[in-house]
Amino acid sequence: VEFKIIDDFFKPYSSHRADVLLGIGDDCALVKPPRDQLLAISTDTLVEGVHFLHGTSAHSIGHKALAVSLSDLAAMGAEPAWVLLSLSLPHIDEDWLNQFRQGFFQLASEYNLPLIGGNTCQGSLSIATHIIGVVPPSKAITRSGAQPGDGIYITGYLGEAGLALLALQHKIPLSSAPLAQAQKRLDYPDPRIAVGLALRGIASAAIDISDGLAADLSHILEQSQVGASIPLANLPISPLMQSIPVEKAHELILSAGDDYELCFTVPAKLEPELKQVLKCPYHCIGVIDDIPGLRILDADAKPLSLQKKGYEHF
Amino acid sequence: VEFKIIDDFFKPYSSHRADVLLGIGDDCALVKPPRDQLLAISTDTLVEGVHFLHGTSAHSIGHKALAVSLSDLAAMGAEPAWVLLSLSLPHIDEDWLNQFRQGFFQLASEYNLPLIGGNTCQGSLSIATHIIGVVPPSKAITRSGAQPGDGIYITGYLGEAGLALLALQHKIPLSSAPLAQAQKRLDYPDPRIAVGLALRGIASAAIDISDGLAADLSHILEQSQVGASIPLANLPISPLMQSIPVEKAHELILSAGDDYELCFTVPAKLEPELKQVLKCPYHCIGVIDDIPGLRILDADAKPLSLQKKGYEHF
Repeated sequence: VEFKIIDDFFKPYSSHRADVLLGIGDDCALVKPPRDQLLAISTDTLVEGVHFLHGTSAHSIGHKALAVSLSDLAAMGAEPAWVLLSLSLPHIDEDWLNQFRQGFFQLASEYNLPLIGGNTCQGSLSIATHIIGVVPPSKAITRSGAQPGDGIYITGYLGEAGLALLALQHKIPLSSAPLAQAQKRLDYPDPRIAVGLALRGIASAAIDISDGLAADLSHILEQSQVGASIPLANLPISPLMQSIPVEKAHELILSAGDDYELCFTVPAKLEPELKQVLKCPYHCIGVIDDIPGLRILDADAKPLSLQKKGYEHF
Repeated sequence: VEFKIIDDFFKPYSSHRADVLLGIGDDCALVKPPRDQLLAISTDTLVEGVHFLHGTSAHSIGHKALAVSLSDLAAMGAEPAWVLLSLSLPHIDEDWLNQFRQGFFQLASEYNLPLIGGNTCQGSLSIATHIIGVVPPSKAITRSGAQPGDGIYITGYLGEAGLALLALQHKIPLSSAPLAQAQKRLDYPDPRIAVGLALRGIASAAIDISDGLAADLSHILEQSQVGASIPLANLPISPLMQSIPVEKAHELILSAGDDYELCFTVPAKLEPELKQVLKCPYHCIGVIDDIPGLRILDADAKPLSLQKKGYEHF
């Protein structure tokens, strides 16, 4: 199968790594896996009109397509190793491809991540990235390790990407400076690879927040067979989010997704270590208990009914 | 990111392998790579209207999506290990998904190949498969190892998938029995994994024929910096292809593709070993020389001009 565009437009810009014996241009890439590590493997697809708005810059699409894949590795505590790219394009537009490539490789180069393969086909605009990372066997962080008593944490602040989306869709008013700030969160999510690596041996479970805190934390709870009660008041509201009504801010934090922060759990005895290793802002939002399910509590400690737990594909 | 359809429709049907520590349902799959082997990695996409006709059965699409990926492993001499699947679907159709799944897993089970991840999104119908195989470092067969004097071989017979496509498009008349036979080649290509494994240590170069013999052999010649002259008379014509004019048969063999046979080269001294290990029909069609490029020779040994070297995406 032909790799023409990948060959011509992408191959010359890829990083090199000693463990890549054969990169783009043969029937397969050949790589040498490290000894005594597991491979963490994930695939993600961004579709125009579903995962990004029509008219989004090609540069940001290139960044984001890779960022969402890196975010999956971050949530496992894995270190990025190799990536492949499948592009579906309505037509060949060299300017678009150049911009896309720059966005993609700017992020890839931060991790010295080589593009080792891919393909292109004609169709509606979508970008699939296939990423492989490595993690020592005892250090991989899954969704299923949370235990009652573990603290529940999130990195950074949530809801800003969702705020940008609403503002761009004219569903919420936002002046240009905060819009630009929010849009940076939407278009250029920063995958929490360093956090994932720092959480090795500390976090009992983790997930990246792509679909909203409620939906993604629920995955941890279900797969760990535990539960949690989260008071609304525990949700950190960023300075940017303080410009909108607090109810709207809570809704976006709980269900907008697309921020690609991490939600993770840590046994109480490891909290001192967490403080030492984590260099980014983070917040404890609750504690795992043994009552199945997620309960979001209002100011009177009454559970809210969540109509929309997060963005669900289909 | 959500794996709902992959979880619900696919996960219960996947094979199990001891080296899969975590399959579908977390941020990444976790697998244990074998020691002292390389990973062969490839991604392929099938798009409705480009790689298969509108109206093609979901069962055959499921088969073919995996077959084209397996064919890439075959061409490297790699053994299938793990596969991921990205589905873009215009809408959710349980019947379609059931048929697709049966076609996919019927082939996957032949190789005890587990589906370890994937995703689904809404969009025009396309299927991307991401496959990983394993091969000992000294045994991987690339496109770049052909040397002058090596024999050029193809497995089986070419052109039958292209014949089916023309007949289904009413561009060529074909009665129902031969059409059914040809359509089996188009819809259910049989990846040459066993041949790829048998060619380890014997073939100096290999490629799978997805785009037509002329285009794919040309890749070997370019990447090996060698050439070849192939007399038309050397191209094997299957019984099925004998029902159409010989010129049309040659055209299909050279440029139709989609048969997923292998084209490979073997040093003269290893030809006896080739005979011993290869259990399928195969033909020697020429010899590698040091004059760059591919020349197809007519009955008078004059080079033909090839208008269309094969199917090129875009």
